Amino acid sequence: MNVDTRGAAALLQKMDRVLILTHKNPDGDTLGSAAALCRALLSLGKQARIVNAEPIPSKYDYLFEGLPDESFEPDAVVAVDVADVKLLGDPLEEQYADRIDLCIDHHLSNKHFAKALLLEDDDAAAVMPVYRVLQELNVDITPAIATALYTGLSTDTGCFRYSNASAEAYRMGAEFIDRGADNADINVRMFETKSLGYFQLLSRVLESMRLFCGGQVSVLKITRQMLDETGNADDACEPLASISRQIEGVKCGITMRQKKDGTYKFSLRTHEPLDASRLGALLGGGGHMRAAGCDAGPDEEESLQILLTQIAKELDCSVE
Amino acid sequence: MNVDTRGAAALLQKMDRVLILTHKNPDGDTLGSAAALCRALLSLGKQARIVNAEPIPSKYDYLFEGLPDESFEPDAVVAVDVADVKLLGDPLEEQYADRIDLCIDHHLSNKHFAKALLLEDDDAAAVMPVYRVLQELNVDITPAIATALYTGLSTDTGCFRYSNASAEAYRMGAEFIDRGADNADINVRMFETKSLGYFQLLSRVLESMRLFCGGQVSVLKITRQMLDETGNADDACEPLASISRQIEGVKCGITMRQKKDGTYKFSLRTHEPLDASRLGALLGGGGHMRAAGCDAGPDEEESLQILLTQIAKELDCSVE
Repeated sequence: MNVDTRGAAALLQKMDRVLILTHKNPDGDTLGSAAALCRALLSLGKQARIVNAEPIPSKYDYLFEGLPDESFEPDAVVAVDVADVKLLGDPLEEQYADRIDLCIDHHLSNKHFAKALLLEDDDAAAVMPVYRVLQELNVDITPAIATALYTGLSTDTGCFRYSNASAEAYRMGAEFIDRGADNADINVRMFETKSLGYFQLLSRVLESMRLFCGGQVSVLKITRQMLDETGNADDACEPLASISRQIEGVKCGITMRQKKDGTYKFSLRTHEPLDASRLGALLGGGGHMRAAGCDAGPDEEESLQILLTQIAKELDCSVE
Repeated sequence: MNVDTRGAAALLQKMDRVLILTHKNPDGDTLGSAAALCRALLSLGKQARIVNAEPIPSKYDYLFEGLPDESFEPDAVVAVDVADVKLLGDPLEEQYADRIDLCIDHHLSNKHFAKALLLEDDDAAAVMPVYRVLQELNVDITPAIATALYTGLSTDTGCFRYSNASAEAYRMGAEFIDRGADNADINVRMFETKSLGYFQLLSRVLESMRLFCGGQVSVLKITRQMLDETGNADDACEPLASISRQIEGVKCGITMRQKKDGTYKFSLRTHEPLDASRLGALLGGGGHMRAAGCDAGPDEEESLQILLTQIAKELDCSVE
């Protein structure tokens, strides 16, 4: 059943002991939504706690400061920023998949698994519908709640940089700052702190850069050796994929990431006129117009040549 | 004479042929302020053009699209985002220093050189007072004007990331988006496009990284050779100075930049409890609490030791 802001607020109003679930591999939006909702429910005299399938990275600790750590038998389960029960992760998926009373989300791809769903797919972040529900509930937006809401909004919009950062997102950002979110501090925590290993990996990866098609295609290669020697796990590759496209004149950035089995995964990032999803499809992958992915064949350089040949054709140039 | 928004608007109202000056080494705020003001004055039936002492980097071309390139004898000169006539650069300083009728600025350090000054030093960017003046003048905020205003606001706040990004700055950002600024496109142009040489230099500089004080101090060294071999000028070092402090656990980042004469300049960036300006003063330099600079002595490694010894003392650890 789909509900609107008022419907979601009415459901929360009736709950007394609320378990709040976030998605696995938690980010600022799912954690910010959960922290804001948890604090709001507590302020309304209810019991509430957040459960996550995985340990929460320490950089998010500030979101949960002062929250009680009490166990109770929930009478309701609410998921925030969760598009699919599979994203709850083990063991939460097994435990709660069929008993989620309310889901508040902003993913168009939401699988409608909850008994009631508040889905606002025009919103840049799940904290946006969460905030509207808290307003409907007349919750006093304390600095801690504003901090949690701002965190979700800022992280899901790349600090208000991406195309999902709408005028409404900016206005909400302003309201969160008014209510006590220390935006500069939050953004330093979220965006300006990286591990030493990340920078060491970045140096190695940039060294590997190759250019093709007269500088219109850049290729970065991340090997297991680079990851191992700099003490990084696979998730460190994620932010590196966007670098290849940031180079002046580059229309397609290809990041080749070696998987644990030795084969490669390609991340494709494009500017006009190249369609990343169509390029990825050449190797059996897919994605969006500007960002896509695919698995390379056993010889990754041969797979790269297939992509380069097609790109050269589309850009009407030679591969070199 | 200091004027308020209304006073500045009244002055502009009386001008007919307006020359708009920006500061040298132009950035998004001075150029965005100038482009917005120029378009606004044209829309009011006046003549207006922008003059800059230096060529404007091509990435800002979109701000000036469609502006007429007509020469005329001005009856008034307006400077935007210019804190000091020295910042006009040659030959504008000599030509206009004593005949600037109005300056619209946000720098606390403004030297009050203009006949009339609208100074809003709480504002994150000069486009903020410019926008208020345009509103006072009942200017129709077209997409081109909104684009110029958004550009200034976003570039001076690091895309709404820095502590100067107030709630009001966010609200204005929302208004500019409402009026047609394509924020995602502008931010890609301003923040996500870097030269190949920049990334090549970044790789080399990260390779040079050394850590001291148990990982609490990071030191990056940029030699002339690195700059020359990657085809970079000195200004490429500017964004690199902030990297040293972004490493997890680092309380002081020191970036050593070799000058053309072979000696080094140090850029210091600190987190609590270290005071960058006090550290810089040890070598005769200065600056702010979190960002300062100083010149090294003839032996730059010896100068580095002086800083490290003091930092180790303050952090109560050994230099290693």
